Amino acid sequence: MNSVEKSVSNVLANSLATDYQSVRQHTLALCRHLQPEDFVLQPVEEVSPAKWHLAHTTWFFETFLLLKEVSGYKAYHPQYSYLFNSYYESVGERTLRNQRGAMSRPTTEEVMAYRQYVDEEMVSWLSSNELSKESTELVQLGLQHEQQHQELLLTDIKYSLSLNPLHPQVLEIGEQEAAKGSPDFAHIPEGIYEIGFTGEGFCFDNELGRHKVYVQETAIRKQLVSNAEYQEFIKAGGYQKFQYWHAEAWQWIAEKGIQAPLYWAQKEGNWFHYTLQGLQALKPEAPVTHISFYEASAYAEWAGMRLPTEFEWEAAQHLFDWGQRWEWTNSAYLPYPGFLKAEGAVGEYNGKFMINQMVLRGASIATSQGHSRPSYRNFFHAPARWQFTGIRLAKK
Amino acid sequence: MNSVEKSVSNVLANSLATDYQSVRQHTLALCRHLQPEDFVLQPVEEVSPAKWHLAHTTWFFETFLLLKEVSGYKAYHPQYSYLFNSYYESVGERTLRNQRGAMSRPTTEEVMAYRQYVDEEMVSWLSSNELSKESTELVQLGLQHEQQHQELLLTDIKYSLSLNPLHPQVLEIGEQEAAKGSPDFAHIPEGIYEIGFTGEGFCFDNELGRHKVYVQETAIRKQLVSNAEYQEFIKAGGYQKFQYWHAEAWQWIAEKGIQAPLYWAQKEGNWFHYTLQGLQALKPEAPVTHISFYEASAYAEWAGMRLPTEFEWEAAQHLFDWGQRWEWTNSAYLPYPGFLKAEGAVGEYNGKFMINQMVLRGASIATSQGHSRPSYRNFFHAPARWQFTGIRLAKK
Amino acid sequence: MNSVEKSVSNVLANSLATDYQSVRQHTLALCRHLQPEDFVLQPVEEVSPAKWHLAHTTWFFETFLLLKEVSGYKAYHPQYSYLFNSYYESVGERTLRNQRGAMSRPTTEEVMAYRQYVDEEMVSWLSSNELSKESTELVQLGLQHEQQHQELLLTDIKYSLSLNPLHPQVLEIGEQEAAKGSPDFAHIPEGIYEIGFTGEGFCFDNELGRHKVYVQETAIRKQLVSNAEYQEFIKAGGYQKFQYWHAEAWQWIAEKGIQAPLYWAQKEGNWFHYTLQGLQALKPEAPVTHISFYEASAYAEWAGMRLPTEFEWEAAQHLFDWGQRWEWTNSAYLPYPGFLKAEGAVGEYNGKFMINQMVLRGASIATSQGHSRPSYRNFFHAPARWQFTGIRLAKK
Amino acid sequence: MNSVEKSVSNVLANSLATDYQSVRQHTLALCRHLQPEDFVLQPVEEVSPAKWHLAHTTWFFETFLLLKEVSGYKAYHPQYSYLFNSYYESVGERTLRNQRGAMSRPTTEEVMAYRQYVDEEMVSWLSSNELSKESTELVQLGLQHEQQHQELLLTDIKYSLSLNPLHPQVLEIGEQEAAKGSPDFAHIPEGIYEIGFTGEGFCFDNELGRHKVYVQETAIRKQLVSNAEYQEFIKAGGYQKFQYWHAEAWQWIAEKGIQAPLYWAQKEGNWFHYTLQGLQALKPEAPVTHISFYEASAYAEWAGMRLPTEFEWEAAQHLFDWGQRWEWTNSAYLPYPGFLKAEGAVGEYNGKFMINQMVLRGASIATSQGHSRPSYRNFFHAPARWQFTGIRLAKK
Repeated sequence: MNSVEKSVSNVLANSLATDYQSVRQHTLALCRHLQPEDFVLQPVEEVSPAKWHLAHTTWFFETFLLLKEVSGYKAYHPQYSYLFNSYYESVGERTLRNQRGAMSRPTTEEVMAYRQYVDEEMVSWLSSNELSKESTELVQLGLQHEQQHQELLLTDIKYSLSLNPLHPQVLEIGEQEAAKGSPDFAHIPEGIYEIGFTGEGFCFDNELGRHKVYVQETAIRKQLVSNAEYQEFIKAGGYQKFQYWHAEAWQWIAEKGIQAPLYWAQKEGNWFHYTLQGLQALKPEAPVTHISFYEASAYAEWAGMRLPTEFEWEAAQHLFDWGQRWEWTNSAYLPYPGFLKAEGAVGEYNGKFMINQMVLRGASIATSQGHSRPSYRNFFHAPARWQFTGIRLAKK
Repeated sequence: MNSVEKSVSNVLANSLATDYQSVRQHTLALCRHLQPEDFVLQPVEEVSPAKWHLAHTTWFFETFLLLKEVSGYKAYHPQYSYLFNSYYESVGERTLRNQRGAMSRPTTEEVMAYRQYVDEEMVSWLSSNELSKESTELVQLGLQHEQQHQELLLTDIKYSLSLNPLHPQVLEIGEQEAAKGSPDFAHIPEGIYEIGFTGEGFCFDNELGRHKVYVQETAIRKQLVSNAEYQEFIKAGGYQKFQYWHAEAWQWIAEKGIQAPLYWAQKEGNWFHYTLQGLQALKPEAPVTHISFYEASAYAEWAGMRLPTEFEWEAAQHLFDWGQRWEWTNSAYLPYPGFLKAEGAVGEYNGKFMINQMVLRGASIATSQGHSRPSYRNFFHAPARWQFTGIRLAKK
Repeated sequence: MNSVEKSVSNVLANSLATDYQSVRQHTLALCRHLQPEDFVLQPVEEVSPAKWHLAHTTWFFETFLLLKEVSGYKAYHPQYSYLFNSYYESVGERTLRNQRGAMSRPTTEEVMAYRQYVDEEMVSWLSSNELSKESTELVQLGLQHEQQHQELLLTDIKYSLSLNPLHPQVLEIGEQEAAKGSPDFAHIPEGIYEIGFTGEGFCFDNELGRHKVYVQETAIRKQLVSNAEYQEFIKAGGYQKFQYWHAEAWQWIAEKGIQAPLYWAQKEGNWFHYTLQGLQALKPEAPVTHISFYEASAYAEWAGMRLPTEFEWEAAQHLFDWGQRWEWTNSAYLPYPGFLKAEGAVGEYNGKFMINQMVLRGASIATSQGHSRPSYRNFFHAPARWQFTGIRLAKK
Repeated sequence: MNSVEKSVSNVLANSLATDYQSVRQHTLALCRHLQPEDFVLQPVEEVSPAKWHLAHTTWFFETFLLLKEVSGYKAYHPQYSYLFNSYYESVGERTLRNQRGAMSRPTTEEVMAYRQYVDEEMVSWLSSNELSKESTELVQLGLQHEQQHQELLLTDIKYSLSLNPLHPQVLEIGEQEAAKGSPDFAHIPEGIYEIGFTGEGFCFDNELGRHKVYVQETAIRKQLVSNAEYQEFIKAGGYQKFQYWHAEAWQWIAEKGIQAPLYWAQKEGNWFHYTLQGLQALKPEAPVTHISFYEASAYAEWAGMRLPTEFEWEAAQHLFDWGQRWEWTNSAYLPYPGFLKAEGAVGEYNGKFMINQMVLRGASIATSQGHSRPSYRNFFHAPARWQFTGIRLAKK
């Protein structure tokens, strides 16, 4: 390495250290109103405790970087690897997902100390100037991973506190800004489109393999479906007419008694909505949120339209504003042609979930800054409602 | 109608009556070894009693044709509509699917009388020369519907009798003929392919909307995976290595204790297989069958290949023999562009199942003659194993 | 043995053979209206198929007598022992209880042939004059066992056919005769009573160990609670007021949506009742039946009284008519002092069920002749409703 | 009231105030090692969070005394009644039992403030000299209620922390002192015994109605079964032989995979035991604990003996030491003759649980001082293992 190369490398390393600190601090900022007891809650299996998110994201850096790359690094605690592994089968045994809420120890304070220990080691290492390409990519993956958990942290806490009759506030983020854009449609012509990640910077393995897709002529609405529009669907008996629903969706709403989006509650004729800021009157102009794929699809059927495919969405996304809600598409989460898993534990990141989930595109008010791009593929099971999901309509 | 048109119409009507009788008689032929008690079995919700299949296919003709088109037609029994509706929400209330096996009455004999009554009315009407295009199409749909149930009837009975330690024979159909074709690969070049039904004759709504799809260069193996090959996977510890499995598949094999295809049993080191002809030694050269999508996918991973998409399959299907096993693809069951449901109850046929199922292509030894074509889309949930499913490998 | 002894033994043997034939034929008589398909039904785990009852009672004689006592006896079928064992762990593996309904083979016809084979062997052996005391007792146990199954056979078939919307008739037995006796109370004074079987003849192990029990002064109503009285409880909101119910009962009626006895249905304001003879208008004067212990207890609470203990019942039973309904007591099913299990498989008969069940006393319209006595202890779980259960009130 | 009466009343009131303070402080003392996160845990429905115990016992005093008796008393928080009601249906709606662990707010700190507020009001009122007999009894009931919860608090926390791989300490209480007394038997002669509470002081409604019971001659072992003795049962294959087990117990150990008492773990051939003081080597001479009724009963069968009835126990209890473990009896939890529920919510205290539970007699190391007596009837479901339960043998 000559001196110019060295100084570029220096700058990059410093920038990575800065990014690292910025991302890690943001996680803590999201927890600023939480009480120690809040950090343990796991009301359902899918919702992890806040304390677990804080520790698991830290475990990622310790396991995949410090323990492998930093000679002499001493693991903070011999049992934390077992406690905070999420789903990486190749790393060894782990706490069952539905038992995370049973772990009151280590306490939040102890987890914070763990974060600090790892952060100091990481920053010291990141500033030491000798990162390989692989290490750099792993650090970036770790930060992207933490940003994913930031969104989950927020939506998990919201879900956990939503069950509390005292309706506590989570954070000052406003959920009910008016849907952006106009209600008319953007048109794209029939033809071949390139789909998948392109350009510099980070992306996940599931976005790779940019490839050609033949897309039919499509019109996509520029504005998300609003609360007012969704209320029309409810008033028209949408939840009572099987015609709009998938067979399994129809069974699901019957079994769960579902009649409205998650977090909606009617009091004396008026709709209220539990938001990150506490219970609020529902604003008609805000985009509807916390709906399942089933509901998004039924709404579209009722409206005489449909949900776009993820390919239509990506081909047309430059023609409308997005970022308020994660948008359900009618595409199943499947590998792109030539999809390749990475070697080792990191290879478990995405591929093994490519069955029985639907793709969401866009981003939401809970998405961390810098963590969205046109090729980003999010995915959830069809009944999931605790994310900030929304509806964008398409038609021929 | 002039006299030429009349005589053409005559011939068509007679041909339809002949088809009707032929299909209906084939259903009975499939049951020729069954005892009255066999007709009631419903060991799990997905498996319907033979008696129910016999009655439900009859109900279709009575409800959608005789009651609507034949003036003066008298329903055979006032409660049969309730008893033998399957999932058509628009036709009214129906027996819960998991309660079908609780219905010992009407007896098999009474159901046979019902069939005969409806058959006589149908044949008389079909021979009367005045069918509209809509009616003709509905009769054809009814016959295709009955052929679908013929395959289910066979696989349902096989499943029901498989639980019996006496291993009864179902029918003389041989399951273990050697896999057809050679083990080399057929190649198709990258490019745009037309997908969907084309030509004359019958097809289901889910095959319609022939459209362009961009397909990457692909190689598809001409021969299905054999029992011998699948045994290699088992011997190599395939069921014990998480790397090959989807996350939910891994949980599924653990919970169910799955270690081999359905109906396989090991006795003193040798594998046996419960077939339609009773318990038989496993033939190594026969194509493996009764495997879930999960297992098909894990096998392909282990083999360093993958399952084809349904589009690749349809584009390449003229290059290999198919028809021994239904072949799992890596495509989710979703609507083609411009998919339209028919009006009324018949519109419930396919669309409402387009979520969380995987597409199978081809046909099987249990498929009735004339009930297969290159554009046919079958679909089942990922864990389903009681159909004659198989594995065809693809690679780049 | 001298000639007098021989001839006495002869008579006894002949009488046993006669009893045997009479009991065995009665079982068949109960099935005289059943169709082959009816014999397979097992809608819930607790309800066994009629075919299974026919075979299992036969298995008892084959296993515990013919195979042990008759030299040269050849088992009818090598797998029937596995198929028709009920719960005797010591006899070996057996079909899971909830899989009995999955067994269409052997067919009813084949089971009838099995019965005939065993009956011929049994009668021949019973007439051959050389029975030991142990054998005689085992034959008697087998006949009592078959009589128990006769009652279960009837109530199981009734349950199975009750699910059929065609409301088939089971048998000509009338269920709705008026409650016997007068509505006043029989009184017994405080003091020591002898409880348990006494005298000659057969009894089960759970009745043995006649012993002293101190009973408080008690009044027991001579007449069972009638449908009319039970309707008052319903009208008074009995199913809506938690005060009358055990905590687990209150949860049970909420979860199951229970608002009336099993088999009651309200049509246009009138109550109907599915009986062995089919659907009938409810007769107000008949004793209420098909109620759980929970409901019996709640009714008594509402009436300001209570259920008698089994000791009070036995002490007072000569003062009232019984035999229409099995009567729930407020006694848990527990061993009498000095209770001893027999050696071997027969020892599993009763003791292992002595937990979490309540005792019923008396008999019902479905009880076979000669199968009731004052010390007889029946027992079921608190939520069981498919037997002909009833309510007898007690107060201080 | 004359002056002497007044001063007596004064003393009593002061003594009640002193008792109140002493009991309330003891509850807090039990929590002295807990971290805020520990207070929220509810790993299974039966185990309530520590925070809930602290609040619920406080709610009892606020609801049944302060709000009813103290004019001008202002409820501490309008929603706490809803949040901390346990099972009193008559007091109104309440949080579902299995949702208690979902309530992170109010925080432990806020609950402590609630306790302090209520304590100040209570002490002030108790010292004010004008308590009616009913009020005095309710205060005493409240204190006994709190003492019951003290035992549950300890056993619930033990259970919650037992799931944590870090094995935290709960409290300094030693669990493994040697079993008291000698291994010989105390004998009581056949005859009539008086059973039920007698004398001055407090008792629960389920102990009232002292009455005569006829008891057979009995021998009861003076010493509880020890760990060493229980290990013999395990070594002898006790968990593998159905002969010793109730039918439902046999199913239970199979389904749950139970092979030893709760909290036992084998490491390299040695048994360890998670205790209130953390993980310890098992002491052979300590009485076995954390076993279900099923296990206690199976052990007794294996030992050729039986469990005593609660009547035998009460008749003989002056002949042996008790108080180390709650002792399972073979008596079902049923009302004594003439059992009467109190009016109002307090009447829900015991009667509604008198079904499908078994009686335990004695007390345990977790029982608060002054909270045990010979007539005390504790009760749990047969599979319960998280209390400090034990085995005392009886024989004829």
